[in-house]
Amino acid sequence: MVTAQDLPDFNNVQKAAERLKKYVHRTPILTAQGLDRICGAQLYFKCENFQKVGAFKIRGATNAVFDLPEEMLTAGVATHSSGNHAAALALAARWRNCTAYVVMPRTAPQVKINAVQSYGAQVTFCEPTLEAREQELTKVISRTGAEVIHPYNDARVIAGQGTVALELLTELPDLDAVLVPVGGGGLLSGTALTVRGLKKKCQVIGVEPQNADDAHRSFYAGRIIPSDNPQTIADGLRTSLGTLTFAIIRDKVDDILTVTEESIIDAMRLIWERLKIVAEPSACVPLAVLLEGRSRVAASKIGIILSGGNVDLDRLPWLKDKV
Amino acid sequence: MVTAQDLPDFNNVQKAAERLKKYVHRTPILTAQGLDRICGAQLYFKCENFQKVGAFKIRGATNAVFDLPEEMLTAGVATHSSGNHAAALALAARWRNCTAYVVMPRTAPQVKINAVQSYGAQVTFCEPTLEAREQELTKVISRTGAEVIHPYNDARVIAGQGTVALELLTELPDLDAVLVPVGGGGLLSGTALTVRGLKKKCQVIGVEPQNADDAHRSFYAGRIIPSDNPQTIADGLRTSLGTLTFAIIRDKVDDILTVTEESIIDAMRLIWERLKIVAEPSACVPLAVLLEGRSRVAASKIGIILSGGNVDLDRLPWLKDKV
Repeated sequence: MVTAQDLPDFNNVQKAAERLKKYVHRTPILTAQGLDRICGAQLYFKCENFQKVGAFKIRGATNAVFDLPEEMLTAGVATHSSGNHAAALALAARWRNCTAYVVMPRTAPQVKINAVQSYGAQVTFCEPTLEAREQELTKVISRTGAEVIHPYNDARVIAGQGTVALELLTELPDLDAVLVPVGGGGLLSGTALTVRGLKKKCQVIGVEPQNADDAHRSFYAGRIIPSDNPQTIADGLRTSLGTLTFAIIRDKVDDILTVTEESIIDAMRLIWERLKIVAEPSACVPLAVLLEGRSRVAASKIGIILSGGNVDLDRLPWLKDKV
Repeated sequence: MVTAQDLPDFNNVQKAAERLKKYVHRTPILTAQGLDRICGAQLYFKCENFQKVGAFKIRGATNAVFDLPEEMLTAGVATHSSGNHAAALALAARWRNCTAYVVMPRTAPQVKINAVQSYGAQVTFCEPTLEAREQELTKVISRTGAEVIHPYNDARVIAGQGTVALELLTELPDLDAVLVPVGGGGLLSGTALTVRGLKKKCQVIGVEPQNADDAHRSFYAGRIIPSDNPQTIADGLRTSLGTLTFAIIRDKVDDILTVTEESIIDAMRLIWERLKIVAEPSACVPLAVLLEGRSRVAASKIGIILSGGNVDLDRLPWLKDKV
């Protein structure tokens, strides 16, 4: 059972922001008039694709690794991840001179596997199911004694991810809504802590693929209903909510919407074409909801957390039929 | 014969900067540690792909259009262009409520044709040779009486393009070198005016495709030797130097280097992967020279003018074999 003491609060987000200053980028916020016209709203993209390791995940991982007492560093840190958290933990561990052990699904994009290995982490591969990942991680821990830094169901990680919204709302205090991609829920729950902590009249809305809609179903059922090996192009959003992230999301998030694979691809192409940036499919899920229907989000000044930019440039989804 | 009075000077660049403030973006300068490691130098990318119309060309076009006296606006403005200057002139003309007539080669990328038309310009198509473009433009002018704004061989345009380097060197006063793609030479000559005008000990180096090396040949021959229908992926660099740009380049530029098509594609992919931005092939030519050999540029703190981001996302060059 999760109790209030297990959960991070806004104070933890503020402390994380202070701690992260030296290590992570304060990422830019981009706009494009053409996209505003298409969506009928003012859109502000918080570009975590420009973040270290190419994704917001460095924030949570760094906050967790720097939270460890000195005597725990020798055994190292460990995690399972579809990619961005793995790279993030590897880099954060290197900053603190400790070893990172990473369990990755065999199906992770090659570019993400390369990144993790380039930061000096020790990688073990497994089947692409939550069960296989957790089993393999258990083996690694019993061998090494490393501290597990879960990719999202970890209070230190959630607090770190909340710093994205803190930067966004500091720069743009009057947003009506923030749209956040939701996989395991670390970014969404961190964002909710921040927006509620700042006492903003600003909706916090999670968006996920229809094909991996565990957060939507869990939110409305009032209990965690995990997805089993969901198939979506948004490879960062295949994971299901954890106990901590669900507890925060149920309490502080306004809604969770879902989008089709087609909309995600349309949104991705549009972001590349209009913002001139490289964004991974998971990062494009929030824009997809606006493309599906302006009325789905009752807001006129909308922050969009563009979560990352690690994409295999040899396999762009809009070229699928041609390759 | 070009005389000194025909040429713009640094004073014109400074005036252009003042005039453009209201209309164009001050674009960001991006860095990536991974690219610095690969190239063995500190690289600073001035990202004109984030500029209005997706390229630096809006600067020169806007400076030229706003330089016109009121009574010339009724007849409109006209140009021929492979794309980015066309879109730029169309938008600048719209800002000043006058008609833009644009002659484009049939082979221009569809995304560029769409952009020009969306800004309300009247487009005429022609064969993709300099001769055909100029003939068609002559017809348009005799019909309309429009003022020609040449894409590069125009003092007002050159002064406008010089504002990119002014922003770059204001932010980074101690660069050792600036690398600039060279097609018709508007950006390169404008950059040279600025760097020499600021009296910087900073090399100004033009880079162009081996397959369209008229600037290199002209620079070393001391006279203009145009290319005839050159074949290069860098579609913005197929044009040859003009009399004005050549006069400035011969006087103020330190060197002109050339690169292979393979290096351009490698550089383009690397920029997308590491900087997480969408850059067009022409914009990637300066990085290509560093990939071909670190020793080709004797500098350690290098500014790179990343000229634009208008690329057909259906036809990415590194996927050519697969599509």
